[in-house]
Amino acid sequence: MLTASKNIYPRVLKSLIEKLAKLPGLGERSSTRIVFYLLSKPELCEELSFLISELPKKVKLCKKCRNLSEDELCSICLDNSRNRRLLCIVESPVTLYAIESLSLFNGTYFVLHYLLSPREGITAHDLPLEELKGLIEENEVEEVILALSPTLSGNATAEFLKEFLSPFKLKLSRLALGIPYGLEIQFVDPLTLRKSLTDREVLKNG
Amino acid sequence: MLTASKNIYPRVLKSLIEKLAKLPGLGERSSTRIVFYLLSKPELCEELSFLISELPKKVKLCKKCRNLSEDELCSICLDNSRNRRLLCIVESPVTLYAIESLSLFNGTYFVLHYLLSPREGITAHDLPLEELKGLIEENEVEEVILALSPTLSGNATAEFLKEFLSPFKLKLSRLALGIPYGLEIQFVDPLTLRKSLTDREVLKNG
Repeated sequence: MLTASKNIYPRVLKSLIEKLAKLPGLGERSSTRIVFYLLSKPELCEELSFLISELPKKVKLCKKCRNLSEDELCSICLDNSRNRRLLCIVESPVTLYAIESLSLFNGTYFVLHYLLSPREGITAHDLPLEELKGLIEENEVEEVILALSPTLSGNATAEFLKEFLSPFKLKLSRLALGIPYGLEIQFVDPLTLRKSLTDREVLKNG
Repeated sequence: MLTASKNIYPRVLKSLIEKLAKLPGLGERSSTRIVFYLLSKPELCEELSFLISELPKKVKLCKKCRNLSEDELCSICLDNSRNRRLLCIVESPVTLYAIESLSLFNGTYFVLHYLLSPREGITAHDLPLEELKGLIEENEVEEVILALSPTLSGNATAEFLKEFLSPFKLKLSRLALGIPYGLEIQFVDPLTLRKSLTDREVLKNG
């Protein structure tokens, strides 16, 4: 209904609806709703406009771990209480934040930002391998945990990194695969079920 | 999960997620997704930032009908092919756009922007009655259509306007109430069913 009448919207209104509608999770209906809401909040418009323009200017990659940061080094790399010998390799900052929120891991991170994906034309050439090598040597890393999703790209990248890291004298592990909490076994896919059976946890030995 | 780790986000990122999460239809999860998407699109950030800051500066109310407009008068009020003797009173620009999209109505509009609502402290004092009076006189309006929602506030406002407009020599009508297309009669509320029965459409007379 709103689409047909869009041409009588004021230009700014129309352009903003169209731009917002391209953001993930938003369509024309929801972005129209947002724009009409914004119309009644000039101060919020000012704040949002400022923050959005600052975002790409202020947020850059940490020189060491490629985590998002406003400074040269991110807060984790600057934190002296973290164990620098223990390195967790993740795909994205979102994964990093998810692991951090557990308050369980006290090592440092390295963010790839890409996974190998022939379909999207992402090859080993696109992975920050020199930076990874530099960080391992600088921090004298003793253990690497691959926290990559068990997807096609994640598995390929894990296999590749296993190969790449083989010359280094370090312990290498990957997040355990198995049945997630709360899922009934009947709904588990065969690959996961097979993995959880072969890697079964021993509760009592003999 | 993301909430707990929010304090390690760069400041700009965190502030933007919080601000976006307050927009209608968005929560923290969806705004986080949007912000991470924006991080990879610096040009889109620039465009969005510009449009959002322009929105409250550029979009104002048409001097005649209070529709949204970038100029003194909106495109409808400037359109000489519209019948100025016929005036449709709507609550909001959204209603106006909905009616426009039908390409059925060739009159002009007047946008109230508020409905009477004692609960929200909106009284007759808040309605733009002087502007309405001025427009009716200037355009020599002969017919007024009240296109107000059949809600508590809409009904109260319609009743009030009926009273307010009684000194003027003009035809006054309100959008028909009845069963909407596609709804089964068993699901129609009693008030609507009663209305559609008393206002039944005569198909053949005798």
